[in-house]
Amino acid sequence: MSVSAQRVGQALLAPAAVAIVGASDDPSKTTARPLRFLREAGFAGRVYPINPRRETVLGEQAWPSIAALPETPDHVFIVADTRFVVDAVRDCGIAGVPVVTILSGGFGEGGAEEKARAAELRAVAREHGVRLVGPNSIGVVNSRNGLMLTANAAFAEEAPVGTSLVASQSGSVIGALMTRAKARGLGFAGFVSTGSELDLTLGEICELTLTDPQIQSYTLFLESLENAGDLARFAAGAAAHGKPTTVYKLGRSDAAAALSMTHTGSLAGEDAEAEAFFRACGFARVDNFEALIEAEALQRRVGPPSSPARSRVGVITTTGGGAAIVVDQLETRGVSIARPSAAVFEQLAVAGLDVADNLIIDLTLAGTRHDLVRAALQVMADSGEFDLILFVIGSSARLNPELAVSAIAESAAGTVPIAAWPLPDAIGSLTLLHEAGVPAFRTAEACADAVAAVLRRQPSERHVLEVRHEVPSHEQVVALDELSSGVLLREVGASFPATTTCGLDGVPLDPPVWPVAVKALSGKLLHKSDAGGVVLGVRDQAGLAEAVSRIAANTTAYDPELGISHFLVQNMAEGVVAEALVGYRVSPSVGPLIMIAAGGTLTELYGDSSLRLAPVSVATARQMISEVTGLRVAEGFRGGPVGDLDALAEFVSKVSQLAASPEIVEAEVNPVAVLEKGRGVVALDAVVRRAVEA
Amino acid sequence: MSVSAQRVGQALLAPAAVAIVGASDDPSKTTARPLRFLREAGFAGRVYPINPRRETVLGEQAWPSIAALPETPDHVFIVADTRFVVDAVRDCGIAGVPVVTILSGGFGEGGAEEKARAAELRAVAREHGVRLVGPNSIGVVNSRNGLMLTANAAFAEEAPVGTSLVASQSGSVIGALMTRAKARGLGFAGFVSTGSELDLTLGEICELTLTDPQIQSYTLFLESLENAGDLARFAAGAAAHGKPTTVYKLGRSDAAAALSMTHTGSLAGEDAEAEAFFRACGFARVDNFEALIEAEALQRRVGPPSSPARSRVGVITTTGGGAAIVVDQLETRGVSIARPSAAVFEQLAVAGLDVADNLIIDLTLAGTRHDLVRAALQVMADSGEFDLILFVIGSSARLNPELAVSAIAESAAGTVPIAAWPLPDAIGSLTLLHEAGVPAFRTAEACADAVAAVLRRQPSERHVLEVRHEVPSHEQVVALDELSSGVLLREVGASFPATTTCGLDGVPLDPPVWPVAVKALSGKLLHKSDAGGVVLGVRDQAGLAEAVSRIAANTTAYDPELGISHFLVQNMAEGVVAEALVGYRVSPSVGPLIMIAAGGTLTELYGDSSLRLAPVSVATARQMISEVTGLRVAEGFRGGPVGDLDALAEFVSKVSQLAASPEIVEAEVNPVAVLEKGRGVVALDAVVRRAVEA
Repeated sequence: MSVSAQRVGQALLAPAAVAIVGASDDPSKTTARPLRFLREAGFAGRVYPINPRRETVLGEQAWPSIAALPETPDHVFIVADTRFVVDAVRDCGIAGVPVVTILSGGFGEGGAEEKARAAELRAVAREHGVRLVGPNSIGVVNSRNGLMLTANAAFAEEAPVGTSLVASQSGSVIGALMTRAKARGLGFAGFVSTGSELDLTLGEICELTLTDPQIQSYTLFLESLENAGDLARFAAGAAAHGKPTTVYKLGRSDAAAALSMTHTGSLAGEDAEAEAFFRACGFARVDNFEALIEAEALQRRVGPPSSPARSRVGVITTTGGGAAIVVDQLETRGVSIARPSAAVFEQLAVAGLDVADNLIIDLTLAGTRHDLVRAALQVMADSGEFDLILFVIGSSARLNPELAVSAIAESAAGTVPIAAWPLPDAIGSLTLLHEAGVPAFRTAEACADAVAAVLRRQPSERHVLEVRHEVPSHEQVVALDELSSGVLLREVGASFPATTTCGLDGVPLDPPVWPVAVKALSGKLLHKSDAGGVVLGVRDQAGLAEAVSRIAANTTAYDPELGISHFLVQNMAEGVVAEALVGYRVSPSVGPLIMIAAGGTLTELYGDSSLRLAPVSVATARQMISEVTGLRVAEGFRGGPVGDLDALAEFVSKVSQLAASPEIVEAEVNPVAVLEKGRGVVALDAVVRRAVEA
Repeated sequence: MSVSAQRVGQALLAPAAVAIVGASDDPSKTTARPLRFLREAGFAGRVYPINPRRETVLGEQAWPSIAALPETPDHVFIVADTRFVVDAVRDCGIAGVPVVTILSGGFGEGGAEEKARAAELRAVAREHGVRLVGPNSIGVVNSRNGLMLTANAAFAEEAPVGTSLVASQSGSVIGALMTRAKARGLGFAGFVSTGSELDLTLGEICELTLTDPQIQSYTLFLESLENAGDLARFAAGAAAHGKPTTVYKLGRSDAAAALSMTHTGSLAGEDAEAEAFFRACGFARVDNFEALIEAEALQRRVGPPSSPARSRVGVITTTGGGAAIVVDQLETRGVSIARPSAAVFEQLAVAGLDVADNLIIDLTLAGTRHDLVRAALQVMADSGEFDLILFVIGSSARLNPELAVSAIAESAAGTVPIAAWPLPDAIGSLTLLHEAGVPAFRTAEACADAVAAVLRRQPSERHVLEVRHEVPSHEQVVALDELSSGVLLREVGASFPATTTCGLDGVPLDPPVWPVAVKALSGKLLHKSDAGGVVLGVRDQAGLAEAVSRIAANTTAYDPELGISHFLVQNMAEGVVAEALVGYRVSPSVGPLIMIAAGGTLTELYGDSSLRLAPVSVATARQMISEVTGLRVAEGFRGGPVGDLDALAEFVSKVSQLAASPEIVEAEVNPVAVLEKGRGVVALDAVVRRAVEA
């Protein structure tokens, strides 16, 4: 890390001196909060309130300007009115302040005037080498040293100290995370409201803190996915430092309708792109808001994701009904419970536990006794059958923590991680468990969500994250015709049927193997079937001549401008078990993406597809295929034939290698015919779009 | 209600005298709890501990037997060992005790010995007219009068009083509901653990309490759907009394369903059947465990469901980020936010509020002021644009309840119900809001779940609930052939294509309109296509003769026993836009059911269908169709033709009328061809199964 980045990181969270520009003397005002909070939290550094209209502010000496200060502050918080901000930043720059956080809004969210102001602010900051947090940032908090550079009312109370740094695009959410964590005895290392990210992005801010030894993990709240390139760089760094990240992102609801598989439109919506991106980053993405607080401890206890995944969850309980609640929540999120073997139940009997052979280990009959709980946990850990033990604690969690809760706490350091959900309200036990290193959850839903998110993690994919994430804007993009598209896709190893071409005379260049499919050949005609541009099952030369004239007539009727004069003559695929759609595109936000879906109209209706950052390995492609419900028809569904899904996985991986060709911005192979197992796949149509120099 | 039912209801929750059989003198024992809890709660009735081995129990006089008591108790709680239970119940019966609750297990969950014991217990209870709660019941609690006939450890602390009665198949869940409600300032009217339901079922127990004026609603926790007929009768009664019911049922996943089956030793119902059943009952079914606590207040405030549904949800907030969280959760659960009209924003401006025109009303710029919040809520209520107002409260909910929270509380009695979710942890405000009559939620997920469940409610369908829910077991069920099935379905008004028949000679009984479909006719051959028993597109008499001989040969090869000698000759449907599957069956658990799905294999993979209790109105059938994703192909999808879904709805409603014919146990019409709009639907194949006398 450069000296400059080090200095910025230190100034951000560990400044020796801070100034507050626009600090108010009226304690009821928002702009009075930073000074109040800094003093209440006992911040040990120097604090300079700046207010040119007053001698004192809240009883402290007020300074007229940055220039008038006896030293250069490391971090300045500007809470003054919008119109004073640019000048204040310039003053900071002249004085050599490395980091300025800006509360004020009015920089680019509105009309032209705001955009101009934002441009000026950015220019001034660049000129003087000042790094900005915000504008529109509710501030920066370091719970460990009392740095309360924030106007968030929530920090009127003490923020408990923890080991995770919160970075949030929403300012108010920070207070919610702090208070909801506090209510269960948890805290955070600090909080950064990233605001408009005019300069420092969320990813950059997190990256700046990676060397802070007290920050052991990251908690991200995103309203939308922006500046993904910076976030990817942070993700790679976080993986290298062994610091896990939990992320909550708004916008799930847009995703439901976002799947688009037209030849011209985008392949997937924004949220699906974000999901693919987080997966490549190795982040745990949660859907439940409080899981954003609680999953962190689980991530740290489970450790980094591995491949193949360790996902065998064993459930043990003193309440059958409670365990069923969480099992239901886990299974509906795709987490299967690992049933203990007969040997485990035998070992439990040897240890004196009366437990019925079942999906879970139910201690109800054995009784909620400290020694029995310890013994049962030991048997589970020793069995080697579980990667995670989930304990659902009954009423004793509230009234008798000395029974199950303390036994679980004492077992925390074992070889297998233990997590816990108390069925009753039991805040005290949550705290006890957390302190013992047992990730514990307030609700069954957050518990199941966190477990699913953590088990779903993949090791972060450095080779994918290093692919460019900002796409150069091309002045012109052209669609290649099917023949040229096929040639290009063959270069990455995709297989197409034997193909030749003919002109309007119907005489093929090479002798075809009958029967053949005959198709209009034009980069301008992308929906060939709609235009009557395809004739299937042509059995001989006479049929070919007839097909050519029919297609010519159809396409002319469809669009007289087309002037179709070349035709593709292609071997027909036989023994097709299923059809798939394989799409590749470069997203302006996250870069190259590969998608697979089942073919056909219904697939589009069901939004049934799997998306990843490209390129993908064959193993990842195989996993993607398993996520597409419609492709189960190729798994011998209802006694039907089994399709060559391994070949499909190879095909998907090959198409994803287009990521190495920056000029290719989109490719869609639709349909890909999946033949019977061992016979491979064949691409029956394809369109590639390529950027060209203007 | 008969005198007897009144007496049982009174004895259940308001007994003048109770006895505890097997009360222990050792305060650490489970069996000592009921007496301890009764005394701690100050139960005002007489309490008789029965323990033949002791003079005193916990310092009170102990009695040797029921017969030795100075009076007949109304309610006896048996906590004694299993082997003493039958005799104790007999003693109660002889003495004239109306209600006995049994803690002990060992009645039917295990092997033959247990089953015999259960049969004996049932016989003794019947003989003496004793009504039983349990066995395997953790007990009965009435929070209002200190009746703590329970061994649930959770009741060592005070249970706050509320207006909803909890009835639960799980004993431990009762403690979780009590403590989790208490943590947010809520209580319940009482709790009944229904145990094995050997005699009184959950539905019967609830029904017994319907006339209790202090019980204003019901909170049900079900492990599986049993004794649906009793529950349906209770539902009809609850609707008549205007008492809403909230239900949580395990078994969304198969694993949890299997778990609850082994846990209670009873059969697990299919969750989809339960869902259809709850809908007909007018229950609000929640998926989030804490929503089971919080949805009740929302139900009471919103009032009974109406048709058409009132489902316009307006969102107002002092935290944009927080509102986005709950909007996301609502939308993913199918609840769309009603965007305020321009007139509403104008009214807000008139009232002095600076609010940007958006999907939600965001007061962030206007500021969190008491008067502004009141004014904004008044504008929303006056607009007539919302059936429910959801307020997402920012950090002031925790630190300054005198601002937004009290303004919301003061607006609670308006014409439009208001519900609230505070973004930060704010237990005090939850209590304040609840006390003011504003349903408030701890998590965004429970909030969205409850709102979705309450808005999804339908008025309870008395005509459906009154259809028999226990199906007589038929000694024999026969499948009718397609012709007879069609005749029967025509009787309920379903339309089939013009049809005639022919024999092996290929001469039709009536002259057909070509082209026709020719099909083997036999009640033994249900998968005609698999057997080569269908020839489509037959254009003339010669083709018909050929088709007949081909089918005869194919079906003989398929199964020489079939001996097909009759054939259906049916007009071909033209202009088919989509195909649907309409199914009718009588479930042993919930009675007649009607189902609609899109045709084809993928539908099965996606589980894409809609299920209701039969019969259904055309309006309900139309709603069912809208729930089937695959049928959107008939809505002009991607520029295609529009299908006659109104005719399909009529068809579904007609098939559902089979519920009036008790001898019909199953019918499947597959496919139903949906023609272009205005041209109706045609059933292309059907199988009906009818029960016959043995």
